[in-house]
Amino acid sequence: MKPIKIGVLGLGTVGGGTVNVLTRNAMEITRRAGREIIITRASARSVDKQRICATHAIELTTNSLEIINDPEIDIIVELIGGAGVVKELVLAAIDNGKHVVTANKLLIAQHGNEIFARASEKGVIVAFEAAVAGGIPIIKALREGLSGNQIEWLAGIINGTSNFILTEMRDKGRDFADVLTEAQALGYAEADPTFDIQGIDAAHKLTILAAIAFGIPLQFDKVYTEGIANITRLDIQYAEELGYRIKHLGIARKSAQGIELRVHPTLIPQHRLIANVNGVMNAVVVKGDAVGPTLYYGAGAGAEPTASAVVADIIDVVRALTSDPDNRVPHLGFQANALADIPVLSCQHFSTAYYLRLTAEDKPGVLADVTGILADHNISIEAIIQKEPLQGETSIPIIMLTQITFEQEMTAAIAKIEALLTVTGKINHIRMETLG
Amino acid sequence: MKPIKIGVLGLGTVGGGTVNVLTRNAMEITRRAGREIIITRASARSVDKQRICATHAIELTTNSLEIINDPEIDIIVELIGGAGVVKELVLAAIDNGKHVVTANKLLIAQHGNEIFARASEKGVIVAFEAAVAGGIPIIKALREGLSGNQIEWLAGIINGTSNFILTEMRDKGRDFADVLTEAQALGYAEADPTFDIQGIDAAHKLTILAAIAFGIPLQFDKVYTEGIANITRLDIQYAEELGYRIKHLGIARKSAQGIELRVHPTLIPQHRLIANVNGVMNAVVVKGDAVGPTLYYGAGAGAEPTASAVVADIIDVVRALTSDPDNRVPHLGFQANALADIPVLSCQHFSTAYYLRLTAEDKPGVLADVTGILADHNISIEAIIQKEPLQGETSIPIIMLTQITFEQEMTAAIAKIEALLTVTGKINHIRMETLG
Repeated sequence: MKPIKIGVLGLGTVGGGTVNVLTRNAMEITRRAGREIIITRASARSVDKQRICATHAIELTTNSLEIINDPEIDIIVELIGGAGVVKELVLAAIDNGKHVVTANKLLIAQHGNEIFARASEKGVIVAFEAAVAGGIPIIKALREGLSGNQIEWLAGIINGTSNFILTEMRDKGRDFADVLTEAQALGYAEADPTFDIQGIDAAHKLTILAAIAFGIPLQFDKVYTEGIANITRLDIQYAEELGYRIKHLGIARKSAQGIELRVHPTLIPQHRLIANVNGVMNAVVVKGDAVGPTLYYGAGAGAEPTASAVVADIIDVVRALTSDPDNRVPHLGFQANALADIPVLSCQHFSTAYYLRLTAEDKPGVLADVTGILADHNISIEAIIQKEPLQGETSIPIIMLTQITFEQEMTAAIAKIEALLTVTGKINHIRMETLG
Repeated sequence: MKPIKIGVLGLGTVGGGTVNVLTRNAMEITRRAGREIIITRASARSVDKQRICATHAIELTTNSLEIINDPEIDIIVELIGGAGVVKELVLAAIDNGKHVVTANKLLIAQHGNEIFARASEKGVIVAFEAAVAGGIPIIKALREGLSGNQIEWLAGIINGTSNFILTEMRDKGRDFADVLTEAQALGYAEADPTFDIQGIDAAHKLTILAAIAFGIPLQFDKVYTEGIANITRLDIQYAEELGYRIKHLGIARKSAQGIELRVHPTLIPQHRLIANVNGVMNAVVVKGDAVGPTLYYGAGAGAEPTASAVVADIIDVVRALTSDPDNRVPHLGFQANALADIPVLSCQHFSTAYYLRLTAEDKPGVLADVTGILADHNISIEAIIQKEPLQGETSIPIIMLTQITFEQEMTAAIAKIEALLTVTGKINHIRMETLG
């Protein structure tokens, strides 16, 4: 059979990795796909830069449109990243009747609804396994492997940089800022780490996972997003003492009221498998009504792990080439006309348990005042630790775990506690999940 | 579109679970598959037995052939188990041009080559996700999700009964026989637990995983198989002291010499994620050259977890209905004419590290004799513990961890050590893997 010809847009880390994997594993891939898959053209900002991959067999250009308009190219692999002009390139490829494989989480999370609609119209596939959790086939697991289930919730460590920082803070008792600097030096965090540290990258990925889990449109703007910058090593240490670990999670949960989409640091029981996912590794727990909890673990970033997902998507497209476009796996796992209009809840309507850390004067009655306010808001306390004053200070740290409560009650209670004259500074409050 | 009509053979635990999941999640499944999927007929040994599922909408029969020969039925779901007549039923369904979904690991491991050849000839799909690790979509991950990789090795906890027994022995310091009795009472272990305890069930599953990982024919008869009956709570305790946990693993590894297919108890480092998979849960680690290590975790058995995989397979079949039979995902992930003839190594050619436990007289020179024999066979010692005599005994336990060595050297060394007059009884030897 005729080889499948691939045009790659973008020859950076993932582009280079994709070239390397497709070349090195060519024999294996042909045995799997039933035909050769070769990269014949690629675009890059500069054609003669030093790269991690050999490019002698690839026609290079700085103009992606040349590749998109080349009738010889069967599949466009978009590895530039970002939206803007990239979105136009992807839509142009679709309009030209080309299948698209992309690792672009921002593009899919923010423009996926439009892109998939156009792709369906044109009868082509847009595949995006590499957009979430790198090499872990989590899109496929949700969209196909668990398709018999009603998904109840999912929770994932889907930003490697945040997980690396939290792991280092815990293992070595280091401070956030200190570890962040190292992560940047190691290349785990971008020069501008905003997307990682503020949870935006995780929110992009959660948007995609939730759409596939529940059969809802992509709704990035409705994700409640918190990063890890407010987590201190003290919080990590106190959480450990109470049997919990702090992980930065993307959580999607369906309840009778609607869907919660939230990205935030979370205390989870130490004995959970996902609590033991360390460093830059990713993992996603998916709870289905039939299968129960399942977990998927692997490298969430990096040249070859991401390339692994890109190449798998290419092979998937090849394997689906002869199928009727209306009878393929739908982009979001659910038929486009069967997406549900379920409300996404605002954060005031979340219900979670909480870890609270406050600093109070070492005087009689302080704890009574604090617990009284919580009681007024129907917030039950699960555990409480009152610590000795920290060295050189007179005030004492009080750490509390609450039972599940409405977010709006908690917000109100926190405001009242912070207003107490005996309580100094802000209360550090972190949500808790059992993930059971 | 016309509903897809399913005929189920066997209404036991998994059959009942499949009816329940397809019924309860009918709306969700239709939104995913784009058409209704309904069970219209089912066969069982008795038509009027009390079951875990409602059957008022299903035409029951004791004669599976009636269903196989019904032209209205699109997909046959085989949930009887075992081979013999079941193999004939599956072949008859294929001959009738029906797609088949099965949870039957024994059937696939022992007769898959013949069944897949017949299915390819007739242009139908035989899907078997439920045959390995219950609800975990591990077949799909290997066959599709990791298809860009050369798989280097995989290692799985793929028998829940063995894992339950080892977990209980460790957590509660109980003996093997004692826990086995409980597992049978709880319904985790069959009345005849031979397949579980001797590793045969795991060997069936490993056969299937290895064929898909490496693109080789199914070769159940070449799997080296050991069960857990020789593991004592002392071994578990000593392993823990040394930083290891004992798990019953199915391991497939590709080396320059060939492929190792082995099922046996294994010491693995405590900090590995898979070392913390407890009770009846399953997990499989897959190491690909591009993606690195990945892990898949979930329930490996039970009515609904297994049904989850069965229903996913049914939806997969529906989604592939319009594709050219020669251009689908091949049964073993590799094109049937591209399976490789790689030798499967016999156990003498394995290379692993070892845990050794021997009982010796508390006399000078014993350790020198033992270590001398190991040195003669080029076996390096990684760690050694000599214990106080157990209560009421005069002989002492000696525990050693070795570095990686050839199995034939280890076998020869063990024979010589056991022949020492100062060493009493057999040496308990357990393989070790770092899974790194």
